[in-house]
Amino acid sequence: MNITIRGRTEQCRTVTFDAAKNSVLLIEQRLLPHEFKIIATKNFHGTARAITDMIVRGAGAIGATAAYGLAQGALAFRGRDLKKFSAHVETVYQVLKNARPTAVDPVNAMDDVRRIMARGATVAERQFLALAAAEEFACEDVRHCEEIGRHGAKLIRNDMKILTHCNAGWLAFVDIGSATAPMYAAQAQGKIFHVFCDETRPRSQGATLTAWELAQQNISHQIIADNAAGHLMQRGEIDLVIVGSDRTLGRTGEVANKIGTYTKAVLAARHKIPFYVAIPLSTIDWNLKRGFDIPIEERDESEVLGAWGVVDNAKLKNEKSKPGRRAYIRVANPTSRARNPGFDVTPAELITGIITPVGIFKSQELWKRRHELGFADK
Amino acid sequence: MNITIRGRTEQCRTVTFDAAKNSVLLIEQRLLPHEFKIIATKNFHGTARAITDMIVRGAGAIGATAAYGLAQGALAFRGRDLKKFSAHVETVYQVLKNARPTAVDPVNAMDDVRRIMARGATVAERQFLALAAAEEFACEDVRHCEEIGRHGAKLIRNDMKILTHCNAGWLAFVDIGSATAPMYAAQAQGKIFHVFCDETRPRSQGATLTAWELAQQNISHQIIADNAAGHLMQRGEIDLVIVGSDRTLGRTGEVANKIGTYTKAVLAARHKIPFYVAIPLSTIDWNLKRGFDIPIEERDESEVLGAWGVVDNAKLKNEKSKPGRRAYIRVANPTSRARNPGFDVTPAELITGIITPVGIFKSQELWKRRHELGFADK
Repeated sequence: MNITIRGRTEQCRTVTFDAAKNSVLLIEQRLLPHEFKIIATKNFHGTARAITDMIVRGAGAIGATAAYGLAQGALAFRGRDLKKFSAHVETVYQVLKNARPTAVDPVNAMDDVRRIMARGATVAERQFLALAAAEEFACEDVRHCEEIGRHGAKLIRNDMKILTHCNAGWLAFVDIGSATAPMYAAQAQGKIFHVFCDETRPRSQGATLTAWELAQQNISHQIIADNAAGHLMQRGEIDLVIVGSDRTLGRTGEVANKIGTYTKAVLAARHKIPFYVAIPLSTIDWNLKRGFDIPIEERDESEVLGAWGVVDNAKLKNEKSKPGRRAYIRVANPTSRARNPGFDVTPAELITGIITPVGIFKSQELWKRRHELGFADK
Repeated sequence: MNITIRGRTEQCRTVTFDAAKNSVLLIEQRLLPHEFKIIATKNFHGTARAITDMIVRGAGAIGATAAYGLAQGALAFRGRDLKKFSAHVETVYQVLKNARPTAVDPVNAMDDVRRIMARGATVAERQFLALAAAEEFACEDVRHCEEIGRHGAKLIRNDMKILTHCNAGWLAFVDIGSATAPMYAAQAQGKIFHVFCDETRPRSQGATLTAWELAQQNISHQIIADNAAGHLMQRGEIDLVIVGSDRTLGRTGEVANKIGTYTKAVLAARHKIPFYVAIPLSTIDWNLKRGFDIPIEERDESEVLGAWGVVDNAKLKNEKSKPGRRAYIRVANPTSRARNPGFDVTPAELITGIITPVGIFKSQELWKRRHELGFADK
């Protein structure tokens, strides 16, 4: 998507590969929205660290990063010995896999790359195929998001007010995003609309990442406290909700996504506001039988007890904290503790439709359409 | 209620009067929860400033502060000239009234004090009556909260998990609070329960004030992101919701309260969890005909775009911000703006009951019971 730095607008992806320098280029997402910087990882260890340290996050983005990291590791091999090469690639695979052990996307992406590499007869052929496969993985991620945008844009009419939660934008993918894809596509069609970004406490991805994305794309938007959406719906100020999903159950149509998504779905249903979930097919889980069995990560208390940001001196009368400095502040009572579930599960009955790269479906129909949606019976 | 400083536990009210020094004593609420301090205002101008500057906030608390401020001003008068005294009292009244022009409680409280003062024949008598009336106003506030506690405690059973939103605690009143009153009364009866405090963005009164209160009272509690309540309800982890109210419509049973209250009521109804609103009778508005007409204050964007707290160095690797320093941080994308409605309105159908000092009533029955609830037909 576009990013504008010092008045110049450029095209930019979340993750790309610099073949000349054998480097993976990543937007340093931990600095956003206060600073924009692209970093280059010089070797697969650096790429793995970037995944671990959350320089890059989001299913599509870390999948592509791992795919590029595997190619980067393969390309760094010197010699013609296929056996040694295979052992080296296995090491690279394990290092990247362990960079974020619970994530499934890096593993799926690297398995793709390995399968295609295996077609090469020599080390050089396999190195070439590894990079080609990684590039293809990234481009496919972009194409899927484009297709989500093409289908989802039909839902957006002029003057609509759209609510989104958390960040399922281009920063979470290689480009374009899932929940944001219909917005970017509708904008390209000349439609005029307004987006409310839930700030999405406790990690504030809506206020930081989604708002930053929409600002770069010149899409009209406002940030709201997570508490405010109900009131806005009550006053008729929200026409459509689009969110992403970390895991959608193919058998039940239940959607696991960032904490607070379920609340927005309940509110939308009460106000008869359409509630859509935009997903690439890779996030459909065809195995799990009920949403209750999705493990809900309990995250660190400090996220709820405080906030990260940049010290703003204009707001500090008689205070001398340096401005512009990144700081964690403790907001809550110092002797209190917190609960911090990271995700929640929204039942199919509250979901108007699932926007996929191959069309929009009723959540309850995913299983019936499983072959169309890429599920292969064993 | 109790507060514990350096291991010593003492009784403390939000606002009291020191007759020997003609001073109003107030908990400096802007420093909470990071620092506890009681300040003394030496004259009625200082008392008015304390109201304006939000050293003291909450309906009951500012009502009592204004009542004490009026007595303080009256007591400072030197002389026996009743006419000059009356003119002086009028000045004091206007200064305190203008301290927070939209609030109704200071005016009601001071009208009470003035009515009683008028019974005195001399300046000295009127001065004495002013202080007596202010003390009576404060004590009545406490008694009302005690009665709310007595009725509401019946709703709390052992091992319950209770959700509350914002701060309708003793810091918002002279003592005890409204939404917290049933909890303190149940604790006094030896009941064991757990409270989830919604952090209540954007001003975080739940994470700061309510959590601080509950910690001082040794009530088991945890802070949660406003996004988390839906998930906890879904998993059966919340048994009861109790909130306060800024204005309850006697004719319709609708409840205006801090933004996000409506959302919690919608969620509670879906999960068949009892949702109660605890209020003193003074917050019932017998005139307004529909909740939609309650003006919803749009507050400053900076509340949503950032957060106030104390810099925590332990969380700052390689950063040199001084610890313990109060700071406002910008969290959101610097080029984005926000919407910040301060309140929302919950319809009667979502409210299980209204806990008042004279009993618990169905929200829809307030009008039918208006005489019992202190409404006088004209």
